[in-house]
Amino acid sequence: MKINGKAWRSIWLGEDGQSVEIIDQTLLPHEFAVRTLNSAADAAEAISVMRVRGAPLIGATAAYGVALAMRDDASDEALNRAVAHLLATRPTAVNLQWALARMEQALQVLQPAQRCEAAYRLAALICDEDVEINATIGTHGLGVIENIFASKTERQGPLHILTHCNAGWLATVDWGTALAPIYRAHDAGIPVHVWVDETRPRNQGASLTAWELAAHGVPHDVIVDNAGGHLMQHGLVDLCITGTDRTAANGDVCNKIGTYLKALAAADNGVPFYVALPGPTIDWDIEDGVREIPIEERGGEEVTCVGGMSESGAVCDVRITPPGVTARNFAFDVTPARLVTGLVTERGVCPASREGLLSLYPEKRN
Amino acid sequence: MKINGKAWRSIWLGEDGQSVEIIDQTLLPHEFAVRTLNSAADAAEAISVMRVRGAPLIGATAAYGVALAMRDDASDEALNRAVAHLLATRPTAVNLQWALARMEQALQVLQPAQRCEAAYRLAALICDEDVEINATIGTHGLGVIENIFASKTERQGPLHILTHCNAGWLATVDWGTALAPIYRAHDAGIPVHVWVDETRPRNQGASLTAWELAAHGVPHDVIVDNAGGHLMQHGLVDLCITGTDRTAANGDVCNKIGTYLKALAAADNGVPFYVALPGPTIDWDIEDGVREIPIEERGGEEVTCVGGMSESGAVCDVRITPPGVTARNFAFDVTPARLVTGLVTERGVCPASREGLLSLYPEKRN
Repeated sequence: MKINGKAWRSIWLGEDGQSVEIIDQTLLPHEFAVRTLNSAADAAEAISVMRVRGAPLIGATAAYGVALAMRDDASDEALNRAVAHLLATRPTAVNLQWALARMEQALQVLQPAQRCEAAYRLAALICDEDVEINATIGTHGLGVIENIFASKTERQGPLHILTHCNAGWLATVDWGTALAPIYRAHDAGIPVHVWVDETRPRNQGASLTAWELAAHGVPHDVIVDNAGGHLMQHGLVDLCITGTDRTAANGDVCNKIGTYLKALAAADNGVPFYVALPGPTIDWDIEDGVREIPIEERGGEEVTCVGGMSESGAVCDVRITPPGVTARNFAFDVTPARLVTGLVTERGVCPASREGLLSLYPEKRN
Repeated sequence: MKINGKAWRSIWLGEDGQSVEIIDQTLLPHEFAVRTLNSAADAAEAISVMRVRGAPLIGATAAYGVALAMRDDASDEALNRAVAHLLATRPTAVNLQWALARMEQALQVLQPAQRCEAAYRLAALICDEDVEINATIGTHGLGVIENIFASKTERQGPLHILTHCNAGWLATVDWGTALAPIYRAHDAGIPVHVWVDETRPRNQGASLTAWELAAHGVPHDVIVDNAGGHLMQHGLVDLCITGTDRTAANGDVCNKIGTYLKALAAADNGVPFYVALPGPTIDWDIEDGVREIPIEERGGEEVTCVGGMSESGAVCDVRITPPGVTARNFAFDVTPARLVTGLVTERGVCPASREGLLSLYPEKRN
């Protein structure tokens, strides 16, 4: 996608052909800075402190992390160490496991001397595939939006779409998942307006989604996470669309904490609730997402302290709680499949169910 | 309630017997400061910028605002002007209308020379009545908590209670509504633990509820507003209890934005959802809360800027969004009666329905 007319991806190979460059998303929207990753440790750090985030981008960064490790030491031991180190960064997104397993399987059968070049080639392929997948999700999701817009003709005003967290191009290598259909619809001339959930505690909506949409010129308003229910009660949301960090084989979707609450409100008010996902976020081994998907718990300081820009222009944190207060910080929740109208994948749109997913991915049938 | 062992109310008459003193809640939890109101304009300003907030305390402050106006000028015109000015401060809480109507009705039949003294007396009475009402809500709510705790005996650990916003003593003259039963239960030796919704955009939970609970020694953890659904899905909430700014005659409750989302999650997971309210928050003229209760929309800067304490100890705002972003800020939502397990009032506990409310307030039957 473009920033001031220039095309960017969220991760790319440096000019030296070996280092890896990312946009440091912890600084957005206040500062746009590129950061260079020179080692697997750099990649792991970028994932754990969320310089890169979003399930697809985490996977892509981990893949390049393995490549960076192979540059230093291409032994079996180094490969195992890098994979284990990168795998431990975040527990919920399945793309991380998927990308690392793919790298490991491809590299372990090669001689060490061949591994470095192969690792870079495969990491680049994973990135290119992600871009292609998301562009196709955009096409299929555009169909969903067109249908809903067509059924809205008697009403005034734009098509209001609510999204949670950031599932835009910053969460992927390019295009995004949930935002890809929105960009396509906007480009196709459908008058869309996006309700951007700020998405506490880390405010990826208020910072990243709002920044992306503004850069692309899509009309939007930021709202607190508490507001969506009220908006849906009063007919101010035509469609919800979110991403997912891990999709269970039964169609349950694990996404940023608070997604479940929006899905409940959508169901209570007859608002369609779609989830956009690339195939690699499907965990075919998980039969019941609510019970089985591990939910990352992060530090309480993400809740008690809020980062932003002060009046003097300094980026800093402020503490919103009394001193000494404790906070709990669950990063994701699971939305049961029964609350999801449909899943938008690179292979088309399907019901959120085992049968629905298998209709698109028949090769996963036992 | 007590702060460092000293008993306080949230509003009281100054030592001169005429000025009115409040705790400036916009500075909490970072600074504890008392502010003096010397005129109706001071009272109106304190209500609109939320130095005082919470439906009962707004009503009490408005009553004292009328008394302050009468001190300056007790004419019919001044009375009408003060009532109109104070009424315009905030649109949602019905206590404001109720307190002002009560003041106006009592004063307009008096000679101007008698009005000032009568106004102070009636404002003090409104405050004392509020304290009594909330203490009684605490007693009835304690019964609810005792029953739920008794049914939990086979499980380990404390009784987990989730609350939204601040319906504690800072929202009333003393005791609070939703928190009164929690204080009573804690004092009675029931091991309660409170999940404190931070309550964006103004973070009354993270700032005021956490501060109150800490001052009283009630165990608690602050969570983001997004987290409650996940906690309820996983059996980590035994009971939700909130306040309400206006209760419709059919049992619909209008409370801080986001309450509806928690009620949906409670219903989806079989968690009891109680709402605590003093009789004056019931609006007997409203038959359908979702359709009829006016919802205040406040400035977008409450969403885009977050206040807190910086590392250097300064209380300041940080902007969390990109520059120029627009935000919408609906302050309340309405939870349909069907999602409410019971209403806890000063007259007892009843179903959230017209018949339920009339069983406690039979004098409102036509």
